[in-house]
Formats: sequence, structure tokens, C-alpha cells
Amino acid sequence: MDDLDPAIGTILDGLKLDAAGLIPAIAQQHDTGEVLMLAFMNRASIEETLRSGRVVYWSRSRRSLWRKGDTSGQEQHLVEMRVDCDADALLLLVDQKGVACHTGRRSCFFTAIRDGKARIVAEILADPGKLYGF
Amino acid sequence: MDDLDPAIGTILDGLKLDAAGLIPAIAQQHDTGEVLMLAFMNRASIEETLRSGRVVYWSRSRRSLWRKGDTSGQEQHLVEMRVDCDADALLLLVDQKGVACHTGRRSCFFTAIRDGKARIVAEILADPGKLYGF
Repeated sequence: MDDLDPAIGTILDGLKLDAAGLIPAIAQQHDTGEVLMLAFMNRASIEETLRSGRVVYWSRSRRSLWRKGDTSGQEQHLVEMRVDCDADALLLLVDQKGVACHTGRRSCFFTAIRDGKARIVAEILADPGKLYGF
Repeated sequence: MDDLDPAIGTILDGLKLDAAGLIPAIAQQHDTGEVLMLAFMNRASIEETLRSGRVVYWSRSRRSLWRKGDTSGQEQHLVEMRVDCDADALLLLVDQKGVACHTGRRSCFFTAIRDGKARIVAEILADPGKLYGF
């Protein structure tokens, strides 16, 4: 924490991480307000994100740091990190390069239920096969 | 589920709830895009929300359904529910009456870290003592 402001260290020390050391983090496009995804961070990923300016999550499935975009090229750059009133959730205002979702859609939240009906509300903008090389 | 569309029942059956039967739900003001809060829902709270149009969470601390606004009057009305690509997170587009945060702020995400500095970015709009009668 040498290069982070002490006030930030105090905020991070106050975060309520779950039993696995994780906290949910919402990624929102900073200028349009679109909610892109929800993922999890641990203390190391939070600190690296604040230091580098590039968003890093903790992958629960791979059990490792997940530098968003390392495989797909679809990086997230941090504009602002917000902590909620209970210190148990984060909101990341980001600049998303390309698409956030592994399906090639801008946002992961593309299945909508409205007025009693379900429908898909987002287009596929990028070929997942090209993003992930399969 | 009698009065919900079968396609919605299929979507709800596919949700990946955690070991406690919960799923994180982001509440976003439907017209301004402001992210208001993150809380948890269980199957019963999701179904009641879809049926009634008023947002109901599961309170982990009180271990009971939490009809947002029952105490404070600051209700949330559902405009649209979205499910993410992994079916393990929800995005609620809502119309928030008054303030979402128990501190009297519009959003729970009012502590911001930006450009290496921490600051409070939201005003207190309502007296918590009046909201909760203490």
C-alpha cells in the first residue's frame, strides 16, 4: 500500500469481505451509465486495480487473478471506484474497451423480463470465437 | 408461478443461487442510470417482485423478506428485471421513491476513490432519523 493514499488504505481495511475474502463489484460504463457486469474482487485485485488503472477481478472458477481483457483484448480501465454504505459492495466506473460479455455483447445483462414477458435486449457485437480463439 | 409466463419460470429455474439460496441484485434507477444499491434476493423475493411490481429483497441480517420501503417509505418499483449471461446476478431497473440508502442519500455508493484520493460524492437528502423513526 506504499503508493496509495493512507485514507484509501483505511477504506480498504474497512471492507467487509466474505468468508472467501471476496466482495462483489459492479462494472458500469462511466459515461453512458450502462451496467456491464458483476464480478468479484479480493484485496489484491482491488489494490492492483487502483495502482494500475486496469480492472482486475478474482476469478472464482479459475481461482486466480483475472486481468479483464488478457485473453479477449476487451480491457476495462478504471475511472472511479466507489464503496457502498455497508462496505460490502463496490461500484467500478470504467471505460470498457469493446464488449464486456463473453457472448460478444456489450453488457452481460441481456435477458430482460418486462411487463410479464422475457426477451433478449442486446445484440452480439463481436464474435466470441474471435475474442477467445476457439 | 401460476400467473407468470412459462418462459419466465424457465429463466428463474435456471438461476444459479448460492449455497444460501441467494443471488446478488443491482438496483439501477431506470431513467437516470444511477446505480442505487446492491442487495440479495431469493426465489420467493424474485417471484413476489415480478408479481407485485414492488421490489422485495432477502435481508441476510434479519433473515426475512425485505419489502424495500416498508419502514422508511422509500419504495422501489420494478420497471424491468435483467439476468446476466451466467445466470448468477440480477439487474433491477427500478423507480426509486426518495432515497435508496439508509444514510439518507440517493445511492449507497457515495464513497469514491478517484485519481488516488478518497472523497464523499453524495449529499444527505433525507434525515435518517425521520426515515426510521429513531
